[in-house]
Amino acid sequence: MRVDGRPERTIAVEADGRSVTVVDQTRLPFEFVRRPLADVEAAAHAIRAMIVRGAPLIGVTAAYGVALAMRADPSEANLDRALGLLGATRPTAVNLRWALARLDAALRSLPAADREARAYAESAAIAGEDVAACRAIGRHGLELLRDVRLRRGGGLVRVLTHCNAGWLACVDWGTALAPVYAAHEAGVPVHVYVDETRPRNQGGALTAFELGAHGVPHTVIADNTGGHLMQRGLVDLCIVGSDRTTAAGDVANKIGTYLKALAARDNDVPFYVALPSSTIDWTIRDGVVEVPIEERDAREVTHVRGRSADGTVLDVEVVAPGSPVANPAFDVTPARLVTGLVTERGVTSASREGLLALYPERTKT
Amino acid sequence: MRVDGRPERTIAVEADGRSVTVVDQTRLPFEFVRRPLADVEAAAHAIRAMIVRGAPLIGVTAAYGVALAMRADPSEANLDRALGLLGATRPTAVNLRWALARLDAALRSLPAADREARAYAESAAIAGEDVAACRAIGRHGLELLRDVRLRRGGGLVRVLTHCNAGWLACVDWGTALAPVYAAHEAGVPVHVYVDETRPRNQGGALTAFELGAHGVPHTVIADNTGGHLMQRGLVDLCIVGSDRTTAAGDVANKIGTYLKALAARDNDVPFYVALPSSTIDWTIRDGVVEVPIEERDAREVTHVRGRSADGTVLDVEVVAPGSPVANPAFDVTPARLVTGLVTERGVTSASREGLLALYPERTKT
Repeated sequence: MRVDGRPERTIAVEADGRSVTVVDQTRLPFEFVRRPLADVEAAAHAIRAMIVRGAPLIGVTAAYGVALAMRADPSEANLDRALGLLGATRPTAVNLRWALARLDAALRSLPAADREARAYAESAAIAGEDVAACRAIGRHGLELLRDVRLRRGGGLVRVLTHCNAGWLACVDWGTALAPVYAAHEAGVPVHVYVDETRPRNQGGALTAFELGAHGVPHTVIADNTGGHLMQRGLVDLCIVGSDRTTAAGDVANKIGTYLKALAARDNDVPFYVALPSSTIDWTIRDGVVEVPIEERDAREVTHVRGRSADGTVLDVEVVAPGSPVANPAFDVTPARLVTGLVTERGVTSASREGLLALYPERTKT
Repeated sequence: MRVDGRPERTIAVEADGRSVTVVDQTRLPFEFVRRPLADVEAAAHAIRAMIVRGAPLIGVTAAYGVALAMRADPSEANLDRALGLLGATRPTAVNLRWALARLDAALRSLPAADREARAYAESAAIAGEDVAACRAIGRHGLELLRDVRLRRGGGLVRVLTHCNAGWLACVDWGTALAPVYAAHEAGVPVHVYVDETRPRNQGGALTAFELGAHGVPHTVIADNTGGHLMQRGLVDLCIVGSDRTTAAGDVANKIGTYLKALAARDNDVPFYVALPSSTIDWTIRDGVVEVPIEERDAREVTHVRGRSADGTVLDVEVVAPGSPVANPAFDVTPARLVTGLVTERGVTSASREGLLALYPERTKT
């Protein structure tokens, strides 16, 4: 999408066909800078330190991490090392495992000399498929927005979203925000309520940045506010992304998603989850019990990063010194609270039946 | 309650019987300092700038504000001016109106020369009644905690609370935290999950501070986290305070309370609201429609106050520059989501019938 009128993607291979750069998301919203990923260690660090984040982008970055490793040393031992290093960076996003398994399958049986080129090609394919999937999600989601608008007799469509499932979480377009961008392009008037999404503030920093940079009207709110807005009839639908969706339609997403799904149900607001099928974990049935939830550093809660009046970006302590902190990064929204899943193949119910109707090739698994 | 082992109250009249000091809550959690309220303007400023906050403490501070005004000039014109000035500071807390109406009724018909002494006496009575009410709430709430513990077969009682409804919101003891302090004193093992409560961070800064200073075990969490903890069975009951409770049992409290009530219902966790009867607005039936919700400064969302590594307390910007913000300060939890109201007269259902059973003298109003 656009930044200062220029089209940008979160991850790109430069003109030499080998150098990889990413948007450094830890510098947003105050600075938009790209940084090079020199090697697999840099790719792993970028994922772990959340220089890149968002389930789809994590998968693509991991793929290019393998490509960078193959560029340095295409041996099978180094392939194993790269897969191990990248696989240990984040525990919840299923795309990471999925992308690494795909690279593994593509590379292992090849002669070492062919692995580098094939790794770049496979990574480019994954990135391209992500863009295509997000575009398709946007197209299907746009119809939902048009329907809501029709039912309201025209006017503004007011969408609430949590965390960042925009183009910054993917390669381009985004998942939850793809329908919003599609609506904006199609001239359907849309307004986005953006949860700030503590503790890491991906909403206030990233979603607000990307919507603002692209020119989409929006309002940032504290995470506590969405229920009140729904109660007052100010939200027409919720759309969020997903870090991992189970075969039964349960949705692991940024912590706090579950609370918004409860508020949506209590106020008859449709609650949609937008996801490329790469985030579906076909091996898991009960999300609440089975999805591993990442516990992140207490410092994300005790400290907040921001920009001071003199322009310095720094961390400030906000919690009473000495108070213990818990920081689970995701929660699971049970399928019963999800109105529908918006995938690259269309909109379906959040259920095993709904998912298999769109992905019949999974019936045998 | 105790700070560094010393008993403290949020507002106090000094040994001269006239000077009023308050704990400056904008300096917490990094500094515990008292500051004098020299005159009615200082009292109004303290309420408006949230140097004091919490519905009960706002009421007591307003009362002493009238006393300070009467000390300076006991004329009826000055009484009117003081009531007007103090009444315009905050719109949602009903105690403010209630305390001012009580001072008005006590003072207006008196000779001017008697007003100062009477205003101090009436303010001291309101403060004393608040302490007594909070103690009683603690006593009644303790029984709920004991019951939960019994049903669990002993062990730790895990309480989730939102915002600050502790002694810092009152004169002493607190409302929602009074049962927690009572349990702690009685040797009932208790652990409090503290919502940080963005945008003003009253949980992370104030609740965590007062629990830590008094020695009560607790864990600070992002506002997004409570639903996940309840889903995992880690919360035995929720207790929150109330800024205004309607005659039908609807509860206006800090924004985000409604979301926790929804999560509690979805997970069969009891959800209690602790309140002195001074926060009941007997004139309002439907809280969602009728309670005025204060819209506060966008800067509370766009900026966060904290302490930098060099010890300076400063505001940092956390939202994408230029992004608009909404900041409603309260929401309304419908009575249907409230398991019970814990008042100074006992525990009752969140309903007109429940409230009238405890306050039969209100039947005629």
